[in-house]
Amino acid sequence: MPETLRFDSKRANRFCNAVFAACGCPSAEAAMISEHLVGANLMGCDSHGIIRVCQYVTDVKKGRIVPGAAVTVATETDNTALLDCGWNFGQVGGVRALQCAMRKAESYHISMVTTRRCGHAGRLGAYTQAAAQQGFIALGFCNSPPGDGHFVAPWGGREGRLSTNPMSFAIPCGTSKPILGDFSTAQTPEGKLRLYLNQNRALPPGWIVDAQGQPSTAPADFYGPPRGAILPFGGALGYRGFALGLLVEALGGLLAGTSAVKPVPGNGLALIVIKVSAFLPDAEFASLAEELRSYVKSCPPSPGHEEVTLPGEPDFRVFDDRIANGIPVDAQTWQQICHCAESLGVRWDGIAAKD
Amino acid sequence: MPETLRFDSKRANRFCNAVFAACGCPSAEAAMISEHLVGANLMGCDSHGIIRVCQYVTDVKKGRIVPGAAVTVATETDNTALLDCGWNFGQVGGVRALQCAMRKAESYHISMVTTRRCGHAGRLGAYTQAAAQQGFIALGFCNSPPGDGHFVAPWGGREGRLSTNPMSFAIPCGTSKPILGDFSTAQTPEGKLRLYLNQNRALPPGWIVDAQGQPSTAPADFYGPPRGAILPFGGALGYRGFALGLLVEALGGLLAGTSAVKPVPGNGLALIVIKVSAFLPDAEFASLAEELRSYVKSCPPSPGHEEVTLPGEPDFRVFDDRIANGIPVDAQTWQQICHCAESLGVRWDGIAAKD
Repeated sequence: MPETLRFDSKRANRFCNAVFAACGCPSAEAAMISEHLVGANLMGCDSHGIIRVCQYVTDVKKGRIVPGAAVTVATETDNTALLDCGWNFGQVGGVRALQCAMRKAESYHISMVTTRRCGHAGRLGAYTQAAAQQGFIALGFCNSPPGDGHFVAPWGGREGRLSTNPMSFAIPCGTSKPILGDFSTAQTPEGKLRLYLNQNRALPPGWIVDAQGQPSTAPADFYGPPRGAILPFGGALGYRGFALGLLVEALGGLLAGTSAVKPVPGNGLALIVIKVSAFLPDAEFASLAEELRSYVKSCPPSPGHEEVTLPGEPDFRVFDDRIANGIPVDAQTWQQICHCAESLGVRWDGIAAKD
Repeated sequence: MPETLRFDSKRANRFCNAVFAACGCPSAEAAMISEHLVGANLMGCDSHGIIRVCQYVTDVKKGRIVPGAAVTVATETDNTALLDCGWNFGQVGGVRALQCAMRKAESYHISMVTTRRCGHAGRLGAYTQAAAQQGFIALGFCNSPPGDGHFVAPWGGREGRLSTNPMSFAIPCGTSKPILGDFSTAQTPEGKLRLYLNQNRALPPGWIVDAQGQPSTAPADFYGPPRGAILPFGGALGYRGFALGLLVEALGGLLAGTSAVKPVPGNGLALIVIKVSAFLPDAEFASLAEELRSYVKSCPPSPGHEEVTLPGEPDFRVFDDRIANGIPVDAQTWQQICHCAESLGVRWDGIAAKD
């Protein structure tokens, strides 16, 4: 096993802040990006955490991300908006979209905001979770045009036509943590296939087809050439995962005016935000949600499960652990991050250990 | 194989109309119910078609459905409403909810309507499809409180805590048929288990667990006693199906003020309706949707598939066939429907064969 280091989340946040400030981000925006990345690590979603620092810095250097670009309103009504993010960081576009959607839902009960020309938006659940922590119900959808690779086949097909197109939702539960669903509509991310390939391991069945459309457990059959495809989520019922992937494409992409076919980078976000009190008093909803939580958690577990957990519950436990004990990062990834930070004149040991 | 009869859909519609009128439904409401049931058969969804006539008539006789009950507004804003359906037919509640949601979305861009005290709402996709045929994007969610059986286990659990909680969405595609997703968040409906039990067949793996939480392919292990449970949709990723089931419960149930725990009959519907032109011109969206459709359909099929079809596409083909060639009904079901109709003084041969 590679060596794993642990880092205090607040210091990691300040470190990332310094990196993104050195990239040219205004301080409020550097903070949005840093909090998002460190927040992903805290919730156990390391693939969308500080491991992305190098990628983002490279994207800035290549002009694919434009730090500080104005996020402007392309179209707007009282309770909807399409934001043009000007190729600013996806987290900046995402936070602006969420702020806009919550402000509109506060006055107009249900709102929807989409984004175009938006960088990699990171952990989708961060946006719905933040809305639920303000008492809203939120749904999120995040597509990627083919610029970043259309790896996922339609149901019954053998070539990629969609990205892993995640969706998320969060339900506020009064003083308890929200119910937080956050998942891809594909059977696996491409990154996991790479890991299996590098480790020379067979894939679980049902993840991919080869270029002829035959089921395969060999990661090399995905990469080809000729390239295979990742299957939509759902196994024998994968037509449902495919349908959900199309829903994400329609809301995150088409409704923002983004072609599903033309190769552009970045993500398209769509957020729907619902004000609970348009339907019933917040306290009544919280009480019904608590009743549902208890009812579900009272279910005796199956063998191999210690208990029934609600969506998001395991992640909130990781959060508590990592706040207390730090964020684990493998030594190689850490070295890459530090190297990239140093290219911008930022050093970890130059970051204060305490506030 | 049992004998299968075929019936002209228009005559079947008039027949159902007469049955529901004889139940005491106002004519506009009898038409809503009949069109919904025959429409389900036309789309190939026979489990939600005219086979339900006997169940509904029985429910009326027992007072569980109240024909003609006023559908009233419990809470309302410009773009949201909670409707109290007074235990009228679920189709009446559903159509009223949809009409309300479309009217609000027409003026206020995105709307959401939920229902309480609503009978069995039938085929969920009928509502989202109807919205898309009017040019709206629509999402639908339909829960059932435990009155009708909580058969579906949470992820990692071994007792039922949710119903099969379907969700649906429809995306308008200009002059093409909408993209129409409509599916349960469980691995199977309970009715299919009954069929396998009666036919003494083994279930496909991954559908159920027995009362101890062990995977089983014996339908009797579901029925017990002690009773097992249906698994959430998604196989090894069933935590996603479970999460979607909870989303349906939260929107269709909790947000309408309906407890997830107290046994009541019927369904809770939640419909979100989005006006495309709040984001971009309808024609531009239609063109992007057509581009997506063509791109997906250009995917070469895997072995065992003749072509890649979009969600809903196979159903629209069944529709065309059944409009032309009639609706197939097995002889036994037909006999039951006729018997039930006769108890209300309605006879098939009393229904004109032509308009």
